[in-house]
Amino acid sequence: MSTRETLAGSPDVRRTNLAVMLRHLHLDGPMRRADLTERLRLTRSTVAGLVGELGRLGLVEQAVAGTSTVPAGRGRPSPVVRPCPLGTQVLAAEVRIDQVEVALVGLGGTVLRRESRLLTDRDPQATADLLAGVVRGLLADAPGRVVGLGVAVPGVVRHDDGDVRFAPNLRWRDVGLGAMLAERLPGTDVQVLNDGDAGALAEHLRGVARGWGDVVFVEGEVGVGSGVIIDGRPLVGAGGYAGELGHIAVAGPAGRRCRCGSYGCWETEIGRDALTRALGLGPDVSRRTLVAALHAPRTDLAARLDKVAYHLGAGLAVVVNVFNPRLIVLGGLLREVYPRVSGEVRRAMLAGALTAPAEQVRLVLPELGDDAVLLGAAETVWQRVLLDPVGALGG
Amino acid sequence: MSTRETLAGSPDVRRTNLAVMLRHLHLDGPMRRADLTERLRLTRSTVAGLVGELGRLGLVEQAVAGTSTVPAGRGRPSPVVRPCPLGTQVLAAEVRIDQVEVALVGLGGTVLRRESRLLTDRDPQATADLLAGVVRGLLADAPGRVVGLGVAVPGVVRHDDGDVRFAPNLRWRDVGLGAMLAERLPGTDVQVLNDGDAGALAEHLRGVARGWGDVVFVEGEVGVGSGVIIDGRPLVGAGGYAGELGHIAVAGPAGRRCRCGSYGCWETEIGRDALTRALGLGPDVSRRTLVAALHAPRTDLAARLDKVAYHLGAGLAVVVNVFNPRLIVLGGLLREVYPRVSGEVRRAMLAGALTAPAEQVRLVLPELGDDAVLLGAAETVWQRVLLDPVGALGG
Repeated sequence: MSTRETLAGSPDVRRTNLAVMLRHLHLDGPMRRADLTERLRLTRSTVAGLVGELGRLGLVEQAVAGTSTVPAGRGRPSPVVRPCPLGTQVLAAEVRIDQVEVALVGLGGTVLRRESRLLTDRDPQATADLLAGVVRGLLADAPGRVVGLGVAVPGVVRHDDGDVRFAPNLRWRDVGLGAMLAERLPGTDVQVLNDGDAGALAEHLRGVARGWGDVVFVEGEVGVGSGVIIDGRPLVGAGGYAGELGHIAVAGPAGRRCRCGSYGCWETEIGRDALTRALGLGPDVSRRTLVAALHAPRTDLAARLDKVAYHLGAGLAVVVNVFNPRLIVLGGLLREVYPRVSGEVRRAMLAGALTAPAEQVRLVLPELGDDAVLLGAAETVWQRVLLDPVGALGG
Repeated sequence: MSTRETLAGSPDVRRTNLAVMLRHLHLDGPMRRADLTERLRLTRSTVAGLVGELGRLGLVEQAVAGTSTVPAGRGRPSPVVRPCPLGTQVLAAEVRIDQVEVALVGLGGTVLRRESRLLTDRDPQATADLLAGVVRGLLADAPGRVVGLGVAVPGVVRHDDGDVRFAPNLRWRDVGLGAMLAERLPGTDVQVLNDGDAGALAEHLRGVARGWGDVVFVEGEVGVGSGVIIDGRPLVGAGGYAGELGHIAVAGPAGRRCRCGSYGCWETEIGRDALTRALGLGPDVSRRTLVAALHAPRTDLAARLDKVAYHLGAGLAVVVNVFNPRLIVLGGLLREVYPRVSGEVRRAMLAGALTAPAEQVRLVLPELGDDAVLLGAAETVWQRVLLDPVGALGG
């Protein structure tokens, strides 16, 4: 009911316009003020006033006409407005199985600085200490105001408080990561989110799925992470757990036992272990060796990957029937696997999916590569600023 | 991008307020003008003006204080505002396997008149003729202005033009029902939609799922229809095909062949045929006999339904992982089945679902019963009026 109530109140049109303008600049980069005027369908003087206000908030700057790299349009010269990455930043972190990445990201998505650390001890407290230490270092050197920290983890995360309910590949259950980081980083607003949700958001806003409203992102690593964009908005669900596709059953009760306790989950059939088994590699083989094996010229590759390809396609059929997406982005190890067995994957998908939604879907590879999750964690924090820059930064 | 553009333009606040007020009255029924004022957080005089405008559009009427059935609140008496079902109506139709239902529905969801016809000939042209004939009769007798017709069908429907891409239980493929009805009913705006989507909308707006934002509606009849509400909005997908849960694979390639061409789909394992087989009834048994058998006091019922219950739970596990809903509404034959085997269904669901989303879900029975789909078809038309009453009805 709250949306209805809000609609009824008299909206602050100026604040809304500021938010919309900032969103255009953050996502599309520098542009001529005349183009902003056209996009926002406002008067020139209103736009000039709004740009001035965003400038006072340290969010954008105006370049002298003629010095810009943006091609001049027809008509008289117009100043170029650009997001100002040094004025305001967010922090983004990604917890992987064996390392953590932390980055300082400026408005416009510019990565200003980036730190990587091996995660040798997956104990929750030790992980929180490691993250907080790197974050403090970046905070101390940040050139502008830092508005928050987004942390992506390979697990099921409670939306309200950043509690990691279940992260089998870290061996975490009910880890209050949000609270642990808030305690270590007083004054920093912390948001914890699922890594697949972060990847989906980044590919939707800045990657291959840009401009598409209905998108599913599936990333295969040790497990299978996933995130879903519905009509341009992230699928969240009641508690923040929606879009957890790695544990849909694709192989039935006869499938392998999954770390989640169930059998035949998608991630047990297409995740890293399934790939190493299929290729006849040892269980402790490195990711690098696995990727090399996927690229090696061997004649039996398709035959060896046959079952993985079938299960990848069978899971995609569920995704197609359930979400009717335009794009499915296959990331992580799937980016290496899919091009090698695309025929078999598509056959299995088409056999299991209804014709009407299957006709509309394209399987694509991510554009942001390994950075998608980290950039998505940053975008989660930016979303709050973009919704209401005046409220988030003070006017 | 279009939402962003709209946000930027200066919104017509008065028109928005009219829409919000009408939505409150349509969904919650008569209420004191003072309560409307409180809900909308507007001034008393603004609300009086808005009520007057909705009155001139024939949408609401004000009752003299004291004659109302709405209990008087504290404070001074306030006129009661009520939706006016005789002023404006919509038409709703439901195509079932063996009959069509058509209703004239007034603002507030009041069914003013209702007609039912046997569907003896499922030929698309014959079905369209039958529907159009009943609709014409209702149109001729309608007491007010009729703003459109919503038609729910048990099939996969293209959102743009009402093309029924696939309705296995009607034996339809690529039937242009939207165009066929538009041709037969000039001047009537026709919307065709999936029956599960209609049921979900109705239970969300007027039934058991009222007030809940994340809801999945699953109806088992000959096939399995379904619809999904995400954060208060219907899940649509790229072409209108999303939320088609009847064809997710729950029994793997070893399952029965489905009418869709795949194997082990949810609807082959829990639909009417699966139930009649489980209960040892003949394949041509009527729905009534089947329901009676489900209610008969027999000691072997749970054992006979064991496999259906397992597959119902296994499919629900996928639903829980994918959508993280608060409520799953089990309609149609599932309303009869679930209470008899709820323990086994829940066991199978919990075995396949992740703990975090499983903790949040409740399995419930529908409140609107067999009327859900028809009422949902009506609500689909009302949604357009409610978004912008002035635009839809002329100011």
